[in-house]
Amino acid sequence: MAVNLRAPDPASLRVVAGVELGWAEAGIRKTNRKDLLLIRLAPGATAAGVFTQNRFRAAPVVVCREHLARSPAVRALVINTGNANAGTGPAGIEHARATCAEVARLCGTTPQQVLPFSTGVILEPLPVDRVLAGLPQAFARLAPGHWAEAAEAIMTTDTVPKAASREVALDGKRVNITGIAKGAGMIRPDMATMLGFVATDAAVAGPVLQALTREAADRSFNRITVDGDTSTNDSFVVIASAGSGAAPIVSRDDPRYAALAAALAEVSASLAQAIVRDGEGATKFIEIRVEGARGVDEAARVAYAIAHSPLVKTAFFASDPNLGRILAAIGNAGIADLDAARVQLFLNDVWVARDGGRHPAYREEDGVRVMQGTEILVRVQLGRGNADTTVWTCDLSHDYVSINADYRS
Amino acid sequence: MAVNLRAPDPASLRVVAGVELGWAEAGIRKTNRKDLLLIRLAPGATAAGVFTQNRFRAAPVVVCREHLARSPAVRALVINTGNANAGTGPAGIEHARATCAEVARLCGTTPQQVLPFSTGVILEPLPVDRVLAGLPQAFARLAPGHWAEAAEAIMTTDTVPKAASREVALDGKRVNITGIAKGAGMIRPDMATMLGFVATDAAVAGPVLQALTREAADRSFNRITVDGDTSTNDSFVVIASAGSGAAPIVSRDDPRYAALAAALAEVSASLAQAIVRDGEGATKFIEIRVEGARGVDEAARVAYAIAHSPLVKTAFFASDPNLGRILAAIGNAGIADLDAARVQLFLNDVWVARDGGRHPAYREEDGVRVMQGTEILVRVQLGRGNADTTVWTCDLSHDYVSINADYRS
Repeated sequence: MAVNLRAPDPASLRVVAGVELGWAEAGIRKTNRKDLLLIRLAPGATAAGVFTQNRFRAAPVVVCREHLARSPAVRALVINTGNANAGTGPAGIEHARATCAEVARLCGTTPQQVLPFSTGVILEPLPVDRVLAGLPQAFARLAPGHWAEAAEAIMTTDTVPKAASREVALDGKRVNITGIAKGAGMIRPDMATMLGFVATDAAVAGPVLQALTREAADRSFNRITVDGDTSTNDSFVVIASAGSGAAPIVSRDDPRYAALAAALAEVSASLAQAIVRDGEGATKFIEIRVEGARGVDEAARVAYAIAHSPLVKTAFFASDPNLGRILAAIGNAGIADLDAARVQLFLNDVWVARDGGRHPAYREEDGVRVMQGTEILVRVQLGRGNADTTVWTCDLSHDYVSINADYRS
Repeated sequence: MAVNLRAPDPASLRVVAGVELGWAEAGIRKTNRKDLLLIRLAPGATAAGVFTQNRFRAAPVVVCREHLARSPAVRALVINTGNANAGTGPAGIEHARATCAEVARLCGTTPQQVLPFSTGVILEPLPVDRVLAGLPQAFARLAPGHWAEAAEAIMTTDTVPKAASREVALDGKRVNITGIAKGAGMIRPDMATMLGFVATDAAVAGPVLQALTREAADRSFNRITVDGDTSTNDSFVVIASAGSGAAPIVSRDDPRYAALAAALAEVSASLAQAIVRDGEGATKFIEIRVEGARGVDEAARVAYAIAHSPLVKTAFFASDPNLGRILAAIGNAGIADLDAARVQLFLNDVWVARDGGRHPAYREEDGVRVMQGTEILVRVQLGRGNADTTVWTCDLSHDYVSINADYRS
C-alpha cells in the first residue's frame, strides 16, 4: 500500500493547451489494461529530456535521444508498458523506429518528431505488432482532458496513478503545468525517473528548456531511491507547448525563468515523491537530510548510503530504532577522512547520536515514537562544511520481496 | 535455513598446538547462551589482522589495531557477542581496555598483548561488568580441543557455527590450520568478515604473517556480500602459534610460503562461503564470476553491482529467470565506457545474453531449470580485457526482512 498517497483528483489536473492524450488497451503483456499512451503536441511545441545513465540503454531511449538531438520541435510521444524493449539488440531499435513511423503516419508528421518510450520486463522481444495495432485506438481517443487516464496508462507495478498540476503567473500571463510519472521499483534514477512527463503551455526555446529540465530533475527525480537499481529505461521529458500564447522564454536571464523553474521543480518533486510513496512494498516515507558536507555530491553520497542500506530500511519497516545501523551506513559512504566524532544524528526532533556516539539524553521510547510514524525525517550533520541535500526513500518490507519475486508471474 | 551448510564435525577440527580456547555464558544480551570467548596463545605466537574500512570503527577495533601496531607478539584474544561496543565514544574505548586488562591479569601477560573483539547491536553501551564477570569462567575452560564450542560462542544471527580445518606439509613438516568465523548479515567485508580467526601452528614472522593475512582475506572474506552493509566491527585475524616446531618462515621468498598461503586461503574461503550460505534468509548460494575486465577492481565492481541488486536477489529467491535485471545491474556498475554489445551472460551452462541482447537460442525453461537449483553460477564476460574475479552472495528472501525487522526484539 502506498504511504499517504492517493490517486489525483482528475478535476485538479489542468489542461495544457496544445497537448492531447489518448490511450489504448493493446494487450502488450496483459489484456484489459491500459498499456499504450499517445501524446500529441501542437506545432510550435518544444521538448527536452534527461535519460538513464545505465550502460544498457533500452532501444527507445537510444532512438529518443537521437530524435531530440536532431531538434526539440517534437510533435508526439508514444509510451508502452508491459515490455521495456531493453536488451533486445538491433531488432529492438527497429521496433522503436517502426512505432515512431506509425505514430507519424497517424499524426501527419515525421518519425523524427516522435519520441518513443517503453517500460516493463527487460530482455524480452517487444510485441511490436500489438503496439502498432493499438495505436489507432489511442489516436482516436486524443483529447486535452485525458491526463488522469494517461497517468493510469503508464503504470506497471505502481498501485496509485501519479499526476500533479500547478498554475503559475509569468509576468501576468497564466500558464499551466501538468505532469505524470510511473515507477515503484528499480528506482534510483540517475537523471530521471522510470518515466516522467511534465508539460506546460508556456513557450520555451529548446536550449532553455533543456536547462529547465535538468534543474527540475536535480531537485526531484535525481533525489529519490527505492532500491538503488537504476532502470535501463529512465526518461524524464518536459514539454513546452506554447499553447498559452505567452511570449517565448529564450534566455535563462528572462525574469520569468525562475518562476517557471520553481513551478516545474514543484510538480516534478511532487511526482518523484509520489514514486517513493508508492515504492514497492513501502510502509514509510523517509526524508534523509544531510547537512554540513563539503559539497552537495558528498552530502548525496551519505544520504544514499543510508537510503540504500537494507539494514536501515528493514529497521524502518519494523519501527525499530536500531539506529546504530544509520551510523554504520554513514561510515560506509566512502568518505575517507570522515571524523566520526563530529557526526550528529537526529530522528525528527530527537537527538540520537551526539559527536558520533549515543546522546546521553537519548531515550529508546523517543526513538520508537518517531519510528512508528509513517513520515520520518533523518537528519545528519557531518560537521565538515556548508553543503546539504535531501533524498527521499522508503522502507524495505516483506511486500517488496513478494512483489519482486512475483513480478513476471 | 542455511544453504547446503552443516555444522562442522568437531572431530574434523584439528588442534593447533599452542592455541587454547575457553568460553562463558556471560549473559551479555541474553542468558543461557555462549557469548564470550577467550583464546590464549603460547609464548612465541604471532598475529596479524585486517579490519573494517567503515569510518565508524568500533572501540575494540581501535584498541586491537593499536595493540597489533605495537607488536605481533600477541598472547590472547577476547571476543564478546550481544553488543558491538560501536558508536559508544570514549566510554567504549575504556570498556575495551578494561576487558584487555582483566584478560592480561588472568593470563599473566600485559594488556597490550591482548586483542579485543565485539559483535552485536551498535550504539548501546557495552555491559562491561558482565564481560569481566564472565572471564574467569572462560579462563577455567581453556583447552586446545575447544574449536567447535568457540565457533558457537561467537554466533549472533548465524544459524550454523562456522569452522574449517586443514593440514598442510611444509617442507616435510606437518602443520595444522583451523579457523572459525561468524556473520550472516551486515556482510560486505571491506577487509575482513564480521569476525574471522584462523590459527596455524606454523611459525611465521610478523611482517610475513601480515602479507599472508591480506592475501587470504583478498581470496575469501573480501569477495563475499550478503546485503552490501559493511560492519563497524569487521576483523579477520590470523595466528601463527609456532607450536608445530617447524622452523619460522621469515620471508615471502621461503618456498613454504606459497603452500601455507594456499592452505590459509582455502580455510578462509571455506569460512567466508559458509557466511554466505548462512546469509540472513538465504535460500540460494550464488557465485558471480566476471571475466574479461580491464582490471580486477573493474571485475569486482561489476560482480558487486549484480550481487547487491535487490531486484536480482529477489529474482533468485523466486527462481524466476528475470535475467534482464542482471543486465541492468551490469549497466549500473559505473563503467562509463562499457560497450553493452560486447557483454555475454551465462547462467551455469546456459548462454542467456549474447552481445548484449537475448541469445536467440535461449529458452525460458533452461533459465528456470538453473534458477531452481540452490547453487547457481552467474558468469559475465565483459569483452574488455583479461582480468577476472569471483564474488559469492545469496538471494534476498522474506526471511531476510523478518530477521532484520526483528533482530533486537
